[in-house]
Amino acid sequence: MAVRVDLNISLDGFATTTDQTPENPFGEDWARLTKAYVSTRTFRQRVLHDTSGAGTTGVDDAYGKAYFENVGAEIMGAGMFGFHDNADDPGWSGWWGDEPPFHVPVFVLTHTAPRPPLELSGGTTFHFLSAPPREALDRALDVAGHQDVRIGGGPTVIRDFLTAGLVDRLHVAIVPILLGRGIRLWDGLRGFEAGYEVSAETAESGVVHVTFRR
Amino acid sequence: MAVRVDLNISLDGFATTTDQTPENPFGEDWARLTKAYVSTRTFRQRVLHDTSGAGTTGVDDAYGKAYFENVGAEIMGAGMFGFHDNADDPGWSGWWGDEPPFHVPVFVLTHTAPRPPLELSGGTTFHFLSAPPREALDRALDVAGHQDVRIGGGPTVIRDFLTAGLVDRLHVAIVPILLGRGIRLWDGLRGFEAGYEVSAETAESGVVHVTFRR
Repeated sequence: MAVRVDLNISLDGFATTTDQTPENPFGEDWARLTKAYVSTRTFRQRVLHDTSGAGTTGVDDAYGKAYFENVGAEIMGAGMFGFHDNADDPGWSGWWGDEPPFHVPVFVLTHTAPRPPLELSGGTTFHFLSAPPREALDRALDVAGHQDVRIGGGPTVIRDFLTAGLVDRLHVAIVPILLGRGIRLWDGLRGFEAGYEVSAETAESGVVHVTFRR
Repeated sequence: MAVRVDLNISLDGFATTTDQTPENPFGEDWARLTKAYVSTRTFRQRVLHDTSGAGTTGVDDAYGKAYFENVGAEIMGAGMFGFHDNADDPGWSGWWGDEPPFHVPVFVLTHTAPRPPLELSGGTTFHFLSAPPREALDRALDVAGHQDVRIGGGPTVIRDFLTAGLVDRLHVAIVPILLGRGIRLWDGLRGFEAGYEVSAETAESGVVHVTFRR
């Protein structure tokens, strides 16, 4: 059982993008940042429900497969669930659709009013709580059994767990583009590498996969 | 003939370190940032004049060899020459010693009073000038003949040449440590990758070599 993080960042360390518009709600930068991952066969199967077998099958796909393996619970911030976009709508069920790709209990950290759990198809139940990282992690570990807990994002939530020393494995897919603005993953993490072994591997796409393990 | 940059940076993008003390003038971070490069056989031969054959001979060393090949002139900032430490001493000849590892004309960008060229052993002559990047580059290209011009550093000078669109090949050796402070190479370079091909290679040391070429 391990606490894991997987994240795409730009070469200059940004984990979020800033060019969203009403016409293009994800923005072009987000497409560039996630292109290699979204192109994998695993992403197409697991997230897009594309069973045609299309998609890349190289190094990026190996990391994509590992991403979905052995996860028993997930923790995410309110922004990743989608609260920030519809904060006032008590019926809003996030932007992950009717069958979210998690298939496990997901703990959503939010400071807004508590709401009952939200159960969707495919085994995903969202639980909402206002709690510090350690407490949220204990709740997730309780339900994860022998499986891992993933801290899903966004980057501010991930940094909270990293700086609290709660993460056993951090995998970053470094995409060779320079975004220049957004939220930096690495801020405030001076010396984080102490106590971790670091390995790196390059993918056919040009993405560099760096993994910290302890 | 190409304009080249080679630089060690931390995973969080810092090209300088901040833990220098009078007792440890380079600091421990600098040693960690340059460890893989300093350990190569090429660095030991070319910079330390160690002819014993000691040093690593893998991927880092291949980049070390390429670093010294086919360079006809170098451009560096006043800080890299060593002006900032002894600005008031007209006899100060920099911190590169009697036989600097350049062996070519070196153009030092400085806004302080001009001084005559400084010729040292082994073919290194320092020329001092106050000029914008394009003008300094033209002078360096004039003397480089068919060989390349390297923009040596520091990172602020390198950024000036990168943002001016004057660099044909940027090689960064990304060291898997998080420094958390210093001068960031990537600031202000949003979209730099446009017009370049990017490749990446991992070394036995854990360093990731990323190269932008056009």
